[in-house]
Amino acid sequence: MLLGTVIGNVWCTKKLQSLTGQAFLLVAPEGHQGPPLVCADQAGAGPGDQVLVVSGGGARVAAGAHVPVDAAIVGIVDHVER
Amino acid sequence: MLLGTVIGNVWCTKKLQSLTGQAFLLVAPEGHQGPPLVCADQAGAGPGDQVLVVSGGGARVAAGAHVPVDAAIVGIVDHVER
Amino acid sequence: MLLGTVIGNVWCTKKLQSLTGQAFLLVAPEGHQGPPLVCADQAGAGPGDQVLVVSGGGARVAAGAHVPVDAAIVGIVDHVER
Amino acid sequence: MLLGTVIGNVWCTKKLQSLTGQAFLLVAPEGHQGPPLVCADQAGAGPGDQVLVVSGGGARVAAGAHVPVDAAIVGIVDHVER
Amino acid sequence: MLLGTVIGNVWCTKKLQSLTGQAFLLVAPEGHQGPPLVCADQAGAGPGDQVLVVSGGGARVAAGAHVPVDAAIVGIVDHVER
Repeated sequence: MLLGTVIGNVWCTKKLQSLTGQAFLLVAPEGHQGPPLVCADQAGAGPGDQVLVVSGGGARVAAGAHVPVDAAIVGIVDHVER
Repeated sequence: MLLGTVIGNVWCTKKLQSLTGQAFLLVAPEGHQGPPLVCADQAGAGPGDQVLVVSGGGARVAAGAHVPVDAAIVGIVDHVER
Repeated sequence: MLLGTVIGNVWCTKKLQSLTGQAFLLVAPEGHQGPPLVCADQAGAGPGDQVLVVSGGGARVAAGAHVPVDAAIVGIVDHVER
Repeated sequence: MLLGTVIGNVWCTKKLQSLTGQAFLLVAPEGHQGPPLVCADQAGAGPGDQVLVVSGGGARVAAGAHVPVDAAIVGIVDHVER
Repeated sequence: MLLGTVIGNVWCTKKLQSLTGQAFLLVAPEGHQGPPLVCADQAGAGPGDQVLVVSGGGARVAAGAHVPVDAAIVGIVDHVER
Protein backbone atom coordinates (compact mmCIF):
# COMPACT_ATOMS: atom_id res chain seq x y z
CA MET A 1 0.00 0.00 0.00
CA LEU A 2 0.97 3.67 -0.26
CA LEU A 3 0.91 6.51 2.25
CA GLY A 4 -0.56 9.74 0.96
CA THR A 5 -2.20 13.01 1.94
CA VAL A 6 -5.73 14.06 0.93
CA ILE A 7 -5.39 17.30 -1.09
CA GLY A 8 -8.83 17.66 -2.68
CA ASN A 9 -12.04 16.26 -4.18
CA VAL A 10 -13.08 15.22 -7.67
CA TRP A 11 -16.67 15.70 -8.82
CA CYS A 12 -18.13 13.71 -11.74
CA THR A 13 -21.82 14.02 -12.48
CA LYS A 14 -21.59 12.02 -15.70
CA LYS A 15 -20.18 8.67 -14.62
CA LEU A 16 -20.94 4.94 -14.64
CA GLN A 17 -23.91 4.07 -12.47
CA SER A 18 -21.80 1.52 -10.59
CA LEU A 19 -19.77 4.47 -9.22
CA THR A 20 -22.80 6.19 -7.70
CA GLY A 21 -22.29 6.95 -4.02
CA GLN A 22 -18.50 6.79 -4.15
CA ALA A 23 -16.66 9.87 -2.84
CA PHE A 24 -13.54 10.56 -4.94
CA LEU A 25 -10.68 12.14 -3.04
CA LEU A 26 -7.46 13.46 -4.60
CA VAL A 27 -4.46 11.98 -2.79
CA ALA A 28 -0.82 13.03 -3.18
CA PRO A 29 1.24 9.86 -2.67
CA GLU A 30 4.20 10.42 -0.32
CA GLY A 31 7.62 10.45 -1.94
CA HIS A 32 6.26 10.35 -5.48
CA GLN A 33 7.06 12.91 -8.20
CA GLY A 34 4.04 11.68 -10.16
CA PRO A 35 0.52 13.13 -10.22
CA PRO A 36 -2.05 12.72 -7.45
CA LEU A 37 -4.28 9.63 -7.42
CA VAL A 38 -8.07 9.72 -7.41
CA CYS A 39 -9.18 7.36 -4.65
CA ALA A 40 -12.59 5.99 -3.64
CA ASP A 41 -12.83 6.88 0.05
CA GLN A 42 -13.81 3.92 2.27
CA ALA A 43 -12.58 5.40 5.57
CA GLY A 44 -14.26 8.81 5.84
CA ALA A 45 -11.07 10.80 5.26
CA GLY A 46 -10.90 14.58 4.87
CA PRO A 47 -8.53 17.25 3.53
CA GLY A 48 -5.05 17.06 5.12
CA ASP A 49 -5.50 13.54 6.48
CA GLN A 50 -2.57 11.13 6.07
CA VAL A 51 -4.16 8.01 4.57
CA LEU A 52 -3.44 4.41 3.60
CA VAL A 53 -4.20 3.75 -0.10
CA VAL A 54 -4.66 0.27 -1.63
CA SER A 55 -4.37 -0.09 -5.42
CA GLY A 56 -5.59 -2.50 -8.07
CA GLY A 57 -7.89 -5.38 -7.14
CA GLY A 58 -7.46 -4.53 -3.45
CA ALA A 59 -9.47 -1.35 -4.07
CA ARG A 60 -12.41 -3.46 -5.28
CA VAL A 61 -12.11 -5.74 -2.24
CA ALA A 62 -12.57 -2.53 -0.21
CA ALA A 63 -15.23 -0.74 -2.32
CA GLY A 64 -17.08 -3.75 -3.78
CA ALA A 65 -16.25 -6.19 -6.55
CA HIS A 66 -18.74 -4.54 -8.93
CA VAL A 67 -17.30 -1.03 -8.40
CA PRO A 68 -14.90 -0.04 -11.21
CA VAL A 69 -12.12 1.55 -9.13
CA ASP A 70 -8.38 0.86 -8.89
CA ALA A 71 -7.44 2.91 -5.79
CA ALA A 72 -9.19 3.23 -2.43
CA ILE A 73 -8.52 4.87 0.93
CA VAL A 74 -8.75 2.05 3.50
CA GLY A 75 -7.39 3.74 6.63
CA ILE A 76 -6.49 7.04 8.28
CA VAL A 77 -2.94 6.96 9.61
CA ASP A 78 -2.41 7.80 13.29
CA HIS A 79 1.34 7.41 13.37
CA VAL A 80 4.28 6.24 11.25
CA GLU A 81 7.20 4.91 13.34
CA ARG A 82 10.59 4.86 11.59
CA MET B 1 -7.75 6.26 -10.70
CA LEU B 2 -6.10 8.87 -12.92
CA LEU B 3 -7.26 12.21 -14.25
CA GLY B 4 -6.60 12.79 -17.93
CA THR B 5 -7.65 14.71 -21.02
CA VAL B 6 -9.04 13.15 -24.19
CA ILE B 7 -6.65 14.08 -27.05
CA GLY B 8 -7.72 11.75 -29.86
CA ASN B 9 -9.12 8.48 -31.20
CA VAL B 10 -7.56 5.16 -32.15
CA TRP B 11 -9.02 3.11 -35.00
CA CYS B 12 -8.36 -0.65 -35.31
CA THR B 13 -10.24 -2.59 -37.96
CA LYS B 14 -8.25 -5.77 -37.37
CA LYS B 15 -8.83 -6.57 -33.69
CA LEU B 16 -10.17 -9.30 -31.40
CA GLN B 17 -13.90 -9.83 -31.83
CA SER B 18 -14.38 -9.30 -28.09
CA LEU B 19 -13.34 -5.66 -28.64
CA THR B 20 -16.06 -5.00 -31.21
CA GLY B 21 -18.16 -1.97 -30.31
CA GLN B 22 -15.58 -0.44 -27.99
CA ALA B 23 -14.58 3.17 -28.76
CA PHE B 24 -10.86 3.71 -28.11
CA LEU B 25 -9.95 7.20 -26.97
CA LEU B 26 -6.41 8.51 -26.55
CA VAL B 27 -6.02 10.07 -23.09
CA ALA B 28 -3.08 12.15 -21.85
CA PRO B 29 -2.79 11.40 -18.11
CA GLU B 30 -2.37 14.57 -16.02
CA GLY B 31 1.08 15.12 -14.54
CA HIS B 32 2.67 12.21 -16.40
CA GLN B 33 5.71 12.50 -18.70
CA GLY B 34 4.81 9.12 -20.20
CA PRO B 35 2.83 8.41 -23.37
CA PRO B 36 -0.95 8.72 -23.70
CA LEU B 37 -3.14 5.76 -22.73
CA VAL B 38 -5.65 4.10 -25.03
CA CYS B 39 -8.89 3.82 -23.06
CA ALA B 40 -12.18 2.06 -23.75
CA ASP B 41 -14.77 4.83 -23.35
CA GLN B 42 -17.65 3.89 -21.04
CA ALA B 43 -18.85 7.47 -20.35
CA GLY B 44 -19.40 9.02 -23.78
CA ALA B 45 -16.41 11.38 -23.55
CA GLY B 46 -15.16 13.60 -26.38
CA PRO B 47 -12.04 15.54 -27.40
CA GLY B 48 -10.89 17.98 -24.68
CA ASP B 49 -12.95 16.41 -21.90
CA GLN B 50 -11.26 15.93 -18.52
CA VAL B 51 -11.94 12.31 -17.62
CA LEU B 52 -11.60 9.76 -14.84
CA VAL B 53 -9.63 6.67 -15.99
CA VAL B 54 -9.62 3.31 -14.17
CA SER B 55 -6.83 0.82 -14.94
CA GLY B 56 -6.30 -2.93 -14.71
CA GLY B 57 -9.15 -5.19 -13.65
CA GLY B 58 -11.29 -2.16 -12.85
CA ALA B 59 -11.46 -1.45 -16.58
CA ARG B 60 -13.04 -4.87 -17.15
CA VAL B 61 -15.53 -4.28 -14.32
CA ALA B 62 -16.54 -1.18 -16.31
CA ALA B 63 -16.42 -2.57 -19.89
CA GLY B 64 -17.29 -6.23 -19.21
CA ALA B 65 -15.32 -9.14 -17.81
CA HIS B 66 -14.90 -10.72 -21.26
CA VAL B 67 -13.53 -7.51 -22.84
CA PRO B 68 -9.71 -7.56 -23.05
CA VAL B 69 -8.98 -3.99 -21.92
CA ASP B 70 -6.81 -2.56 -19.11
CA ALA B 71 -7.92 1.10 -19.10
CA ALA B 72 -11.41 2.61 -19.30
CA ILE B 73 -12.97 6.06 -19.04
CA VAL B 74 -15.60 5.79 -16.28
CA GLY B 75 -16.53 9.44 -15.72
CA ILE B 76 -16.36 12.96 -17.11
CA VAL B 77 -14.97 15.36 -14.53
CA ASP B 78 -17.02 18.43 -13.66
CA HIS B 79 -14.69 19.94 -11.11
CA VAL B 80 -11.49 19.21 -9.19
CA GLU B 81 -11.32 21.01 -5.81
CA ARG B 82 -7.83 21.41 -4.32
CA MET C 1 -3.87 0.01 -23.33
CA LEU C 2 -0.62 1.01 -24.99
CA LEU C 3 0.31 1.75 -28.57
CA GLY C 4 3.49 0.11 -29.78
CA THR C 5 5.43 -1.08 -32.81
CA VAL C 6 6.40 -4.69 -33.49
CA ILE C 7 10.23 -4.81 -33.68
CA GLY C 8 10.97 -8.53 -33.47
CA ASN C 9 10.27 -12.08 -32.31
CA VAL C 10 11.23 -14.08 -29.24
CA TRP C 11 11.82 -17.83 -29.48
CA CYS C 12 11.64 -20.09 -26.42
CA THR C 13 11.82 -23.84 -26.93
CA LYS C 14 12.01 -24.59 -23.21
CA LYS C 15 8.82 -23.06 -21.78
CA LEU C 16 5.68 -23.95 -19.83
CA GLN C 17 3.38 -26.24 -21.77
CA SER C 18 0.52 -23.79 -21.26
CA LEU C 19 2.44 -21.34 -23.52
CA THR C 20 2.60 -23.76 -26.45
CA GLY C 21 1.25 -22.25 -29.64
CA GLN C 22 1.67 -18.64 -28.49
CA ALA C 23 3.69 -16.39 -30.83
CA PHE C 24 5.84 -13.95 -28.82
CA LEU C 25 6.43 -10.62 -30.52
CA LEU C 26 8.78 -7.92 -29.25
CA VAL C 27 6.93 -4.59 -29.07
CA ALA C 28 8.48 -1.17 -28.48
CA PRO C 29 5.86 0.85 -26.56
CA GLU C 30 5.38 4.35 -28.00
CA GLY C 31 6.74 7.20 -25.91
CA HIS C 32 8.45 4.92 -23.40
CA GLN C 33 12.17 5.03 -22.53
CA GLY C 34 11.88 1.54 -21.04
CA PRO C 35 12.66 -1.80 -22.69
CA PRO C 36 10.45 -3.51 -25.26
CA LEU C 37 7.62 -5.77 -24.07
CA VAL C 38 7.22 -9.42 -25.05
CA CYS C 39 3.59 -9.82 -26.15
CA ALA C 40 1.49 -12.86 -26.99
CA ASP C 41 0.11 -12.04 -30.46
CA GLN C 42 -3.67 -12.49 -30.73
CA ALA C 43 -4.15 -10.34 -33.87
CA GLY C 44 -1.72 -11.75 -36.44
CA ALA C 45 0.65 -8.76 -36.33
CA GLY C 46 3.98 -8.56 -38.15
CA PRO C 47 7.21 -6.55 -38.05
CA GLY C 48 6.61 -2.78 -38.32
CA ASP C 49 2.90 -2.97 -37.48
CA GLN C 50 1.53 -0.38 -35.06
CA VAL C 51 -0.39 -2.43 -32.49
CA LEU C 52 -2.71 -2.14 -29.51
CA VAL C 53 -1.30 -3.92 -26.42
CA VAL C 54 -3.34 -4.91 -23.35
CA SER C 55 -1.49 -5.69 -20.11
CA GLY C 56 -2.15 -7.68 -16.93
CA GLY C 57 -5.31 -9.75 -16.60
CA GLY C 58 -6.62 -8.30 -19.87
CA ALA C 59 -3.92 -10.26 -21.69
CA ARG C 60 -5.34 -13.50 -20.27
CA VAL C 61 -8.88 -12.48 -21.28
CA ALA C 62 -7.43 -12.23 -24.81
CA ALA C 63 -5.13 -15.29 -24.83
CA GLY C 64 -7.02 -17.58 -22.43
CA ALA C 65 -7.37 -17.65 -18.66
CA HIS C 66 -4.99 -20.62 -18.35
CA VAL C 67 -2.23 -18.96 -20.42
CA PRO C 68 0.47 -17.39 -18.19
CA VAL C 69 0.95 -14.10 -20.04
CA ASP C 70 0.72 -10.45 -18.93
CA ALA C 71 0.81 -8.62 -22.29
CA ALA C 72 -1.04 -9.37 -25.52
CA ILE C 73 -1.49 -7.74 -28.93
CA VAL C 74 -5.26 -7.36 -29.40
CA GLY C 75 -5.46 -5.13 -32.48
CA ILE C 76 -3.56 -3.69 -35.41
CA VAL C 77 -3.92 0.09 -35.55
CA ASP C 78 -5.22 1.65 -38.78
CA HIS C 79 -5.12 5.25 -37.68
CA VAL C 80 -4.52 7.46 -34.64
CA GLU C 81 -6.39 10.78 -34.80
CA ARG C 82 -5.05 13.57 -32.56
CA MET D 1 8.64 -10.13 -6.02
CA LEU D 2 10.81 -7.41 -4.49
CA LEU D 3 13.54 -7.46 -1.87
CA GLY D 4 13.27 -4.81 0.79
CA THR D 5 14.23 -3.82 4.33
CA VAL D 6 11.77 -3.21 7.17
CA ILE D 7 12.26 0.42 8.32
CA GLY D 8 9.19 1.04 10.48
CA ASN D 9 5.54 0.53 11.41
CA VAL D 10 2.31 2.23 10.37
CA TRP D 11 -0.56 2.57 12.86
CA CYS D 12 -4.16 3.15 11.70
CA THR D 13 -6.90 3.05 14.29
CA LYS D 14 -9.57 4.22 11.85
CA LYS D 15 -9.52 1.61 9.09
CA LEU D 16 -11.73 -0.91 7.29
CA GLN D 17 -12.81 -3.74 9.55
CA SER D 18 -11.44 -6.26 7.05
CA LEU D 19 -7.95 -4.94 7.89
CA THR D 20 -8.29 -5.67 11.60
CA GLY D 21 -5.42 -7.80 12.91
CA GLN D 22 -3.05 -6.94 10.07
CA ALA D 23 0.36 -5.55 11.10
CA PHE D 24 1.50 -2.85 8.67
CA LEU D 25 5.25 -2.61 8.23
CA LEU D 26 7.06 0.11 6.27
CA VAL D 27 9.47 -1.48 3.77
CA ALA D 28 12.14 0.29 1.74
CA PRO D 29 12.38 -1.62 -1.55
CA GLU D 30 15.99 -2.34 -2.56
CA GLY D 31 17.34 -0.35 -5.49
CA HIS D 32 14.29 1.91 -5.72
CA GLN D 33 14.37 5.72 -5.56
CA GLY D 34 10.63 5.70 -4.80
CA PRO D 35 8.91 5.87 -1.41
CA PRO D 36 8.66 2.96 1.04
CA LEU D 37 5.78 0.50 0.70
CA VAL D 38 3.29 -0.31 3.45
CA CYS D 39 3.11 -4.11 3.64
CA ALA D 40 0.83 -6.49 5.52
CA ASP D 41 3.25 -8.71 7.45
CA GLN D 42 2.57 -12.44 6.98
CA ALA D 43 6.02 -13.68 8.10
CA GLY D 44 6.59 -12.09 11.52
CA ALA D 45 9.29 -9.68 10.31
CA GLY D 46 10.89 -6.97 12.43
CA PRO D 47 12.90 -3.75 11.99
CA GLY D 48 16.05 -4.26 9.90
CA ASP D 49 14.96 -7.60 8.45
CA GLN D 50 15.57 -8.15 4.73
CA VAL D 51 12.21 -9.38 3.42
CA LEU D 52 10.49 -10.79 0.34
CA VAL D 53 7.49 -8.64 -0.70
CA VAL D 54 4.70 -9.81 -3.05
CA SER D 55 2.48 -7.17 -4.69
CA GLY D 56 -0.99 -7.01 -6.20
CA GLY D 57 -3.28 -10.04 -6.06
CA GLY D 58 -0.43 -12.14 -4.66
CA ALA D 59 -0.69 -10.12 -1.44
CA ARG D 60 -4.31 -11.22 -1.05
CA VAL D 61 -3.36 -14.86 -1.71
CA ALA D 62 -1.00 -14.42 1.27
CA ALA D 63 -3.21 -12.33 3.60
CA GLY D 64 -6.67 -13.57 2.56
CA ALA D 65 -8.87 -12.89 -0.44
CA HIS D 66 -11.19 -10.63 1.60
CA VAL D 67 -8.31 -8.47 2.95
CA PRO D 68 -7.93 -5.21 0.98
CA VAL D 69 -4.14 -5.13 0.66
CA ASP D 70 -1.80 -4.91 -2.36
CA ALA D 71 1.59 -5.67 -0.75
CA ALA D 72 2.55 -8.36 1.77
CA ILE D 73 5.74 -9.66 3.40
CA VAL D 74 5.82 -13.40 2.62
CA GLY D 75 9.35 -14.35 3.71
CA ILE D 76 12.41 -13.27 5.65
CA VAL D 77 15.54 -13.51 3.51
CA ASP D 78 18.45 -15.58 4.82
CA HIS D 79 20.82 -15.05 1.94
CA VAL D 80 20.99 -13.55 -1.56
CA GLU D 81 23.57 -15.27 -3.79
CA ARG D 82 24.78 -13.26 -6.82
CA MET E 1 6.26 -10.16 -20.44
CA LEU E 2 9.82 -9.06 -19.79
CA LEU E 3 13.17 -10.42 -20.93
CA GLY E 4 15.77 -10.77 -18.21
CA THR E 5 18.94 -12.55 -17.16
CA VAL E 6 19.25 -14.81 -14.11
CA ILE E 7 21.92 -13.27 -11.82
CA GLY E 8 21.43 -15.14 -8.54
CA ASN E 9 19.32 -16.98 -5.98
CA VAL E 10 17.33 -15.88 -2.95
CA TRP E 11 17.06 -18.15 0.09
CA CYS E 12 14.24 -17.74 2.65
CA THR E 13 13.88 -20.35 5.36
CA LYS E 14 11.20 -18.39 7.21
CA LYS E 15 8.42 -18.00 4.66
CA LEU E 16 4.73 -18.76 4.09
CA GLN E 17 4.06 -22.47 3.81
CA SER E 18 2.35 -21.90 0.46
CA LEU E 19 5.76 -20.90 -0.94
CA THR E 20 7.41 -24.18 0.03
CA GLY E 21 9.13 -25.85 -2.92
CA GLN E 22 9.40 -22.67 -4.97
CA ALA E 23 12.92 -21.78 -6.20
CA PHE E 24 13.47 -18.01 -6.09
CA LEU E 25 15.82 -16.68 -8.75
CA LEU E 26 17.11 -13.11 -8.96
CA VAL E 27 16.50 -11.73 -12.47
CA ALA E 28 17.88 -8.49 -13.90
CA PRO E 29 15.22 -7.21 -16.32
CA GLU E 30 16.71 -6.10 -19.67
CA GLY E 31 16.78 -2.37 -20.30
CA HIS E 32 15.63 -1.45 -16.81
CA GLN E 33 17.49 0.84 -14.43
CA GLY E 34 15.47 -0.56 -11.53
CA PRO E 35 16.39 -3.35 -9.11
CA PRO E 36 16.36 -7.06 -9.97
CA LEU E 37 13.12 -9.03 -9.58
CA VAL E 38 12.73 -12.14 -7.44
CA CYS E 39 11.00 -14.72 -9.64
CA ALA E 40 9.51 -18.14 -8.90
CA ASP E 41 11.25 -20.41 -11.41
CA GLN E 42 8.83 -22.59 -13.42
CA ALA E 43 11.22 -23.42 -16.28
CA GLY E 44 14.35 -24.81 -14.61
CA ALA E 45 16.52 -21.79 -15.40
CA GLY E 46 20.07 -21.27 -14.16
CA PRO E 47 22.61 -18.46 -13.71
CA GLY E 48 23.26 -16.54 -16.94
CA ASP E 49 20.15 -17.82 -18.72
CA GLN E 50 18.10 -15.27 -20.69
CA VAL E 51 14.54 -15.84 -19.49
CA LEU E 52 10.93 -14.84 -20.12
CA VAL E 53 9.29 -13.39 -16.98
CA VAL E 54 5.52 -13.02 -16.48
CA SER E 55 4.27 -10.63 -13.78
CA GLY E 56 1.12 -10.21 -11.67
CA GLY E 57 -1.69 -12.74 -11.90
CA GLY E 58 0.09 -14.46 -14.79
CA ALA E 59 2.74 -15.62 -12.32
CA ARG E 60 0.05 -17.44 -10.32
CA VAL E 61 -1.36 -19.02 -13.48
CA ALA E 62 2.17 -20.42 -13.95
CA ALA E 63 3.02 -21.33 -10.31
CA GLY E 64 -0.47 -22.13 -8.97
CA ALA E 65 -3.39 -19.96 -7.93
CA HIS E 66 -2.70 -20.58 -4.21
CA VAL E 67 1.00 -19.56 -4.47
CA PRO E 68 1.56 -15.95 -3.34
CA VAL E 69 3.94 -14.80 -6.08
CA ASP E 70 3.82 -11.91 -8.56
CA ALA E 71 6.68 -12.81 -10.94
CA ALA E 72 7.59 -16.16 -12.50
CA ILE E 73 10.08 -17.46 -15.07
CA VAL E 74 7.98 -19.23 -17.72
CA GLY E 75 10.54 -19.84 -20.47
CA ILE E 76 14.21 -19.90 -21.36
CA VAL E 77 14.93 -17.77 -24.41
CA ASP E 78 16.71 -19.39 -27.36
CA HIS E 79 16.82 -16.39 -29.63
CA VAL E 80 15.56 -12.81 -29.93
CA GLU E 81 15.17 -11.66 -33.56
CA ARG E 82 15.12 -7.86 -34.11
